[in-house]
Amino acid sequence: MAGKIGISYGSDSPMTEFGGNPLRGGAINPRLFFFAGGVSGAWSVESINTVTGEGLPLVSRLDVVHGEIEKLPPKTEWVLKGVTSNVRYVARAEQRALLARQAALGRPEARRAALIPIKKSSAWWDLPQDERRRIFEESSHHIATGLKYLPAIARRLHHCRDLGDSEPFDFLTWFDYAPEHAQAFEDLVGELRVTEEWKFVEREVDIRLAR
Amino acid sequence: MAGKIGISYGSDSPMTEFGGNPLRGGAINPRLFFFAGGVSGAWSVESINTVTGEGLPLVSRLDVVHGEIEKLPPKTEWVLKGVTSNVRYVARAEQRALLARQAALGRPEARRAALIPIKKSSAWWDLPQDERRRIFEESSHHIATGLKYLPAIARRLHHCRDLGDSEPFDFLTWFDYAPEHAQAFEDLVGELRVTEEWKFVEREVDIRLAR
Repeated sequence: MAGKIGISYGSDSPMTEFGGNPLRGGAINPRLFFFAGGVSGAWSVESINTVTGEGLPLVSRLDVVHGEIEKLPPKTEWVLKGVTSNVRYVARAEQRALLARQAALGRPEARRAALIPIKKSSAWWDLPQDERRRIFEESSHHIATGLKYLPAIARRLHHCRDLGDSEPFDFLTWFDYAPEHAQAFEDLVGELRVTEEWKFVEREVDIRLAR
Repeated sequence: MAGKIGISYGSDSPMTEFGGNPLRGGAINPRLFFFAGGVSGAWSVESINTVTGEGLPLVSRLDVVHGEIEKLPPKTEWVLKGVTSNVRYVARAEQRALLARQAALGRPEARRAALIPIKKSSAWWDLPQDERRRIFEESSHHIATGLKYLPAIARRLHHCRDLGDSEPFDFLTWFDYAPEHAQAFEDLVGELRVTEEWKFVEREVDIRLAR
């Protein structure tokens, strides 16, 4: 059973931002998502595999919550959170190709999912934008590789690095797919993990789920 | 008088991220800064000018706090917060030129400052990366314009858009400079405000300060 959950979109009052406890800000960002590992939630955890660096404690179920969690489900072991945001590397032609092919999350047949939290090194974050783009796409073909697996694999990227709290990961990527595309998903993550971009990944955990 | 203030850099414990109230995350991001408008703080507010959209209430003083605010100064009217982050548009050659010329904030002679909170439109955020870069630099010369005023004007950019709470602005830029460079600062903001990039600015407030 999930705790009491609500999505707040703010209000028309100009002072809403500063209402309540101003240290918490006001409304919750509607782009915010929580992933709570424990004993409740729609997803059964099949495995938690440490790919690089420190792992995450094993749990039996995962709850995915959009908006605000007022109260955690009982026996929650860990919570990861992130916000969806604007693209950082995708160019116009790539955006067009992605929009033409990508599927929405939550299709009834998508009974497999993966949550892959990643942290990149400070060497990555210190690079200028043009060099990160070159590594990301011209060298590592991150966008082109993802495109090959559309629409079978649907995904949503959440950013954690610029949340106010210090988060253990920089990104959380959530994927869902039908069981018959499980091998395609292995191929996708396998292709990405041997790229130049992945040399900058200093922590990665791979959480597989079913419902 | 500022409230009790501390900077937390986390700990070595692997579970620190999930300690305390997991909804708040754990440690505070050391890249987090608060700007509290009220009756206390090192900076005297000279003016608060609404450039575009909704303004901010006038206050007499501004407190700039790095890290965590445990308690707000009494009579705080508003608090803005943001995190420093990686560059989003700067290329290697530009980064080199900036590093060669830029000065640190907080020079003793820098007795004037400005805080300029900005919110850009969803049309901006929906653009792919290459088009935002083209508007930002090839059309609007944002980096080149800033460079002309270095090292007289020092600056620090804070991002608010991807904080977990819904913030009223996307960016807070903090500038400081010596009084003899006040006209140079007017020229800088004047040049930027007539660019193509600024057509995407839907809210801007210009707060001028002295100490």
